[in-house]
Amino acid sequence: MKILLIGGTGTIGAKVADRLHTDHNLIIAGHTSGDVQTDITKPESIKALFEEVGAVDAVISTTGAAPMQPLDQTTNEHFMEGVKSKMMGQINIALTAMNYLHENGSVTLTSGILAHDPIPQGAVLATINNAINGFVIGAYGEFLKKGFRINAVSPALVEDSVEALGSYFPGHTPAKMPNVVNGYIKSLSTFITGEIINIA
Amino acid sequence: MKILLIGGTGTIGAKVADRLHTDHNLIIAGHTSGDVQTDITKPESIKALFEEVGAVDAVISTTGAAPMQPLDQTTNEHFMEGVKSKMMGQINIALTAMNYLHENGSVTLTSGILAHDPIPQGAVLATINNAINGFVIGAYGEFLKKGFRINAVSPALVEDSVEALGSYFPGHTPAKMPNVVNGYIKSLSTFITGEIINIA
Repeated sequence: MKILLIGGTGTIGAKVADRLHTDHNLIIAGHTSGDVQTDITKPESIKALFEEVGAVDAVISTTGAAPMQPLDQTTNEHFMEGVKSKMMGQINIALTAMNYLHENGSVTLTSGILAHDPIPQGAVLATINNAINGFVIGAYGEFLKKGFRINAVSPALVEDSVEALGSYFPGHTPAKMPNVVNGYIKSLSTFITGEIINIA
Repeated sequence: MKILLIGGTGTIGAKVADRLHTDHNLIIAGHTSGDVQTDITKPESIKALFEEVGAVDAVISTTGAAPMQPLDQTTNEHFMEGVKSKMMGQINIALTAMNYLHENGSVTLTSGILAHDPIPQGAVLATINNAINGFVIGAYGEFLKKGFRINAVSPALVEDSVEALGSYFPGHTPAKMPNVVNGYIKSLSTFITGEIINIA
């Protein structure tokens, strides 16, 4: 398959790339690195990415950020950082992909455990992750009408992020990286759609 | 209780107001009607509303909109309409309320059934409703630290909207208005927090 992996140089994306690159024509998009570059906070930059890459069989997004801080120090601007990056960045990737997917194409987005398992300082991510899940639930029927599928992988704190982020996640058991990658493979290679693939 | 009901002149809000006004000091906020006015798409207008009303025991939001149209005609701008109104409008109400609630105060927001039970043309609302639910899940712990509670009422298509919207919701059984109002009363008057109160 010709697969566009957006965020393929990040913590999760690099491991997804490792698994996919031998069997597929894998194109890695990053903000400043990768085979091609894009700024997911700008819809026109996402459009330019797809114009450059052309039609694909699958799009996988492992990109997007949202800030963490105490809720009583959180403003509309903090939320909008997450909206523009992890939420609308990924939603705009999916909307754009609808015009560039081959028959039976698929889109896989990334949300995360904070959608349903909250931690202190995590309200923005809980909001954004749930929004991404909601998009998958709300959009899969209209993807299906075009013969496309869409899912989200929702990983727990991943083991490769424990050193940097573990102290924010008291009592959380990290997800093993191979299991996280399996989530993306499941979305890519089975027939499921409209699913939130939780990776514990 | 002194209760600020934002959206109290709308389809759901007017029925909530009917139930609350005899037993409580109820202040109704609307965009152009009500006792006081606010534009929920502007954080500074929400702040001005709370400055005008002063400290309250509870805030109930039954306000905010998001567009409906086929997904392949949906753009970033359509999503951002919903983000600025129903999603961030209500989140900014909750963030602002944290500075104006009396002890044991509560906030109740409104999401909706499309978060988990999708219809054609409903992807924006599915996204926005789930974001609101995610905020409640992510934020309730930091509300609790201040002695406050926060919940969302997630109603099905309400019976008073069937004439205008029923054709968008094939196979959906409308929720009876008294049951919808009960959701807000449950959030207001029990001790639950961090809950999505689904009204079928």
